[in-house]
Amino acid sequence: MEKEKKNSAKSFSMNGGDGPNSYLKNSSYQRGAVDGAKGMIREAIEEKLHISSSSPSDTIYIADLGCSVGQNTFIAIQNIVEAIERKSQSQGLGPQTPEFQVFFSDQVSNDFNKLFTSLPPQRQYFAAAVPGSFYNRLFPKQSLHFIYCSYSLQWLSKVPKEVEDMNSPAWNKGRIHYVEAQKEVVDAYFAQFVKDMESFLSARSQELLSGGLMALILPTYTKEMLSIKSFRRPLDILGSCLMEMSKKGIVSEAKVDSFNVPVYSPSSKELEEVIKNTGYFSIERLELLSISKKYKAGPDAKTFSMHIRAGLEGIIDEHFGREIIDELFVLFARKVAEYSHIYNSENRVNEDLFVILCRK
Amino acid sequence: MEKEKKNSAKSFSMNGGDGPNSYLKNSSYQRGAVDGAKGMIREAIEEKLHISSSSPSDTIYIADLGCSVGQNTFIAIQNIVEAIERKSQSQGLGPQTPEFQVFFSDQVSNDFNKLFTSLPPQRQYFAAAVPGSFYNRLFPKQSLHFIYCSYSLQWLSKVPKEVEDMNSPAWNKGRIHYVEAQKEVVDAYFAQFVKDMESFLSARSQELLSGGLMALILPTYTKEMLSIKSFRRPLDILGSCLMEMSKKGIVSEAKVDSFNVPVYSPSSKELEEVIKNTGYFSIERLELLSISKKYKAGPDAKTFSMHIRAGLEGIIDEHFGREIIDELFVLFARKVAEYSHIYNSENRVNEDLFVILCRK
Repeated sequence: MEKEKKNSAKSFSMNGGDGPNSYLKNSSYQRGAVDGAKGMIREAIEEKLHISSSSPSDTIYIADLGCSVGQNTFIAIQNIVEAIERKSQSQGLGPQTPEFQVFFSDQVSNDFNKLFTSLPPQRQYFAAAVPGSFYNRLFPKQSLHFIYCSYSLQWLSKVPKEVEDMNSPAWNKGRIHYVEAQKEVVDAYFAQFVKDMESFLSARSQELLSGGLMALILPTYTKEMLSIKSFRRPLDILGSCLMEMSKKGIVSEAKVDSFNVPVYSPSSKELEEVIKNTGYFSIERLELLSISKKYKAGPDAKTFSMHIRAGLEGIIDEHFGREIIDELFVLFARKVAEYSHIYNSENRVNEDLFVILCRK
Repeated sequence: MEKEKKNSAKSFSMNGGDGPNSYLKNSSYQRGAVDGAKGMIREAIEEKLHISSSSPSDTIYIADLGCSVGQNTFIAIQNIVEAIERKSQSQGLGPQTPEFQVFFSDQVSNDFNKLFTSLPPQRQYFAAAVPGSFYNRLFPKQSLHFIYCSYSLQWLSKVPKEVEDMNSPAWNKGRIHYVEAQKEVVDAYFAQFVKDMESFLSARSQELLSGGLMALILPTYTKEMLSIKSFRRPLDILGSCLMEMSKKGIVSEAKVDSFNVPVYSPSSKELEEVIKNTGYFSIERLELLSISKKYKAGPDAKTFSMHIRAGLEGIIDEHFGREIIDELFVLFARKVAEYSHIYNSENRVNEDLFVILCRK
């Protein structure tokens, strides 16, 4: 066995604890995706998941990669567990349902203490936590039946080197992201996404049993969205806030130039290609996820701002220091309010991909 | 499958973090036991552990129950992993060593965040954490090859009810432990120990594979120790400190009367009987552990006091509140110093049991 590599991926995790800026309190949009995916995950388990019928008491092993601290992960896992219980009963494996072990996995810096104290007391599975980057191996060979990964794969393992290199044509001056940047920046981000996705798929292909399933949910951007002239993505707005603060002398311009958010939202086609090229998985489903208007519409600028903050505070803190964060997000909320026709309405233009893969 | 019961056992865990009062900084005696047990664990794995030779790439699953936050657990696990690697090589299973998954388990309140950030970066195993009381089931059926449990089984799941009941003959007035107490108190503690040990052995018998091994280390008291007239056990001394503080009006006498430490150190014979009566395991080894004088002798009263504090601070805090703790342990260190001929010398009289059990 190759020794487990020291985690070379940078560690990004959501805000811990349960305070007003925590991920726990600011993840209602992700909750919408959990609900939207529920039925499709049940269907996939019913139709595609391979469970050996020879040994009904065998344990079923499930992992949530990028689980953060709950409650979304518990709701998603409960849905998966119940679907598998239903399937094993309908297969006539008798009244005895299998035992389940569920691995909640996230970066080492995730607040696992909080996760453990929030576990549903009446759960019908054995809970475990696994720390580390999912761009490396996390589990033994062929040890999992079902892998779930929601709103995590948009996080790259690191910022592409070139965009931080002043001497590179991909140097990303005056922006914090590839959106609206020159082609070289977009290319560098895309190349990093492909590389990371290949690592992810390779690791998972070793860990998932043959016939096992993987459900992925990740943000995407469609051509239609980009064609809306007045649309500005959140990271674009956040970048302009930082530039504004640098003009006021609150942060240095060089600090902003050297800050880039390692997030990439692939198109449906980009994702499909990297999955097909690696060849480990068959694509059982790949489509836009429809998120209930209940979750999609409605967040006011402040709520939306806190949602973005819960995801980004860690890396902003690391780069700029804690002291700028409150001011930055006040400014951000103010700017987002100018775009309320996009962010605070049923026309909210972000879209998400829902993918079901089966290990060949 | 019976639903996993809500953890009914009270949660006691060692001091987290890495401050001066943390378990991390105050567990050198336990380290001595790790070293003392090393060779015997290697021997047991070499001679007794059953590994299927038919599938050399199969994963080996190991659990440390009551792992606390390290480094002791990492050292113990490393020894077990290396011994199994050596065994699988000597069995001629080829150069390919198995993969390992190691479960670090402790109470929900354990500082798992600290544990995860302390993991050895170059480890040759996949690490996971499992929260919960080991008096309940923690793992799926037949999912482990080796269980290690060091300095944890002396913690009962709870204080026996009777000793806290003013109307019971077992009411433990003026003491915090069964030592030197009336027979009814000793009996109540012993009955709780037997009940808990039965729960522990039953749960482990379901989780351990047939032919799998379990290594236990726990404190014991021998007749010889008890015959030393001048000997006073640490909990006896701590109890007298609390009584002294109650006389000074710092804590109420009723508070002291209602405080009992749920710890029981069985004799070798008591432990042997409960293992035999439950019948799940064969006893491969049960003997006193010899702890190197390097670890045994030497701790001055202050160090010894901090060692006891790291283990008990949690329950003292819960019962009396944080504000008495510093004063209590200053007093405790002063009293321990009076017994330096016992605690600060090679004559230190505590003894530990080392046990190897094999799942029938």
